[in-house]
Amino acid sequence: MEKWRRSERIVVMTKILLESPHKLFTLGYFAQMFQAAKSSISEDLTIIKNTLQDIGQGRLETVSGAAGGVQYLPFVSTKEEQDILQSLSEKLSDPNRILPGGYIYMTDLIYDPSILNKLGHIFAHKFSEQKPDYIVTVETKGIPLALMTAKAFNVPLVIIRNDGRVTEGSAVSINYVSGSSKKIGSMSLARKALPSGSKVIIIDDFMKAGGTAKGVLDLMQEFKAEVLAIGVLIDTKEPETKVVKDYLGLLELDKLDEINKIIRVKIKNNNNI
Amino acid sequence: MEKWRRSERIVVMTKILLESPHKLFTLGYFAQMFQAAKSSISEDLTIIKNTLQDIGQGRLETVSGAAGGVQYLPFVSTKEEQDILQSLSEKLSDPNRILPGGYIYMTDLIYDPSILNKLGHIFAHKFSEQKPDYIVTVETKGIPLALMTAKAFNVPLVIIRNDGRVTEGSAVSINYVSGSSKKIGSMSLARKALPSGSKVIIIDDFMKAGGTAKGVLDLMQEFKAEVLAIGVLIDTKEPETKVVKDYLGLLELDKLDEINKIIRVKIKNNNNI
Repeated sequence: MEKWRRSERIVVMTKILLESPHKLFTLGYFAQMFQAAKSSISEDLTIIKNTLQDIGQGRLETVSGAAGGVQYLPFVSTKEEQDILQSLSEKLSDPNRILPGGYIYMTDLIYDPSILNKLGHIFAHKFSEQKPDYIVTVETKGIPLALMTAKAFNVPLVIIRNDGRVTEGSAVSINYVSGSSKKIGSMSLARKALPSGSKVIIIDDFMKAGGTAKGVLDLMQEFKAEVLAIGVLIDTKEPETKVVKDYLGLLELDKLDEINKIIRVKIKNNNNI
Repeated sequence: MEKWRRSERIVVMTKILLESPHKLFTLGYFAQMFQAAKSSISEDLTIIKNTLQDIGQGRLETVSGAAGGVQYLPFVSTKEEQDILQSLSEKLSDPNRILPGGYIYMTDLIYDPSILNKLGHIFAHKFSEQKPDYIVTVETKGIPLALMTAKAFNVPLVIIRNDGRVTEGSAVSINYVSGSSKKIGSMSLARKALPSGSKVIIIDDFMKAGGTAKGVLDLMQEFKAEVLAIGVLIDTKEPETKVVKDYLGLLELDKLDEINKIIRVKIKNNNNI
């Protein structure tokens, strides 16, 4: 390969950094890749860093010292976050989305990679102070959202099964009470799926009374996991008191009237978190 | 904002293009964004295109004409694909991964975003001639793989539920016979989850006899969907005759001897596809 020009190096570095958020790359790594001086690489990185900062799309963080280097951290500006959530809340506030039992049809939105990508970045940005080892969710609808959050943190996903069909060796099962319907369900996780003492963030798509989230918390205790945070895309205004206390909801199902076909989804005010 | 320098424009364009594969961006879109001449944007894009091509990581395709523009298509070189699959097959060929009933423990790998990202790109590259409207999978373990494939195609994911707990209005259910265990299962999909006549690619993590894939094919017929392709990460050598004929497998479970603790996973030769 001939000598790389700056603009070419920048294409490659931007791609590598963006595809592996939260991963530290040394100057030497890039210097060797491009057969270039570390000072040139350093200038390249400054350009990438300043540009991302200017457009409010991601942060390039420099870690100094012997084990130092540079890493890309997903960043979502307040304006962009508001735009994304506003657009989602408008789409969700459509009477055609009302499902029996006080639920909303939303799989068309939460299974769409272009929307999920942004939501994953929002969660990763909101929880950027945390250093999770794993993102944890319960099957099924929350999986895409949790995976995109895991991708933004560049850590593996752990999926709790909500039936007994775990076929992965010994598993821990717990029963939990659905906070809204008072039905008893069970969830299981294979022992080997989560090392004891792991730090985790729990992500789910929907929270009504919080019974499922409480079940996950209980299960996490069995694994001696430290739960750093809980994030849900939408929670419901009613019941106001959730079984789980500390969690971050992005949207709120403010009103759902099945008979009169009224549904209202709002952006939550999370300034207190 | 001051005038953008070429290297700055390239950071932003690389980010935008990579985050929305298969999406067409016009020259005018970028020209307006940067307040730059279309000729400059065109030169920027040529640099990005040639660089991606040189490193064998993605293709920038130019579509000419009035509705023309440029789009990023994930591309995985043969060497990179072999490296990824070789590394995976070695990890999977570990006797500690043997599970009762002829299964392999692999959720630590197929729930890991850094591995999934590459696998999604491999499927998108292998099926790059296809223009799917949706990627379809059956819960649960195949969901992350299918989502990353959907992301590489920039189309929504559709998840078939394998129980009757579809709470999304009217649904179509079918019974299917698991090809290996001969057990009868059922899978369901909400009517509104997939518009009639859609073009789909089916992605799953594992295929033994193909009974589940056959069930998905039958269900897709109910939705008048056109199945463009089926992709699975691993299939098994035995039984040699699958219920489903045309599919692409990346890896093959060549041997699994529970008693003697021998497992062997190989890269499949897919030159015929």
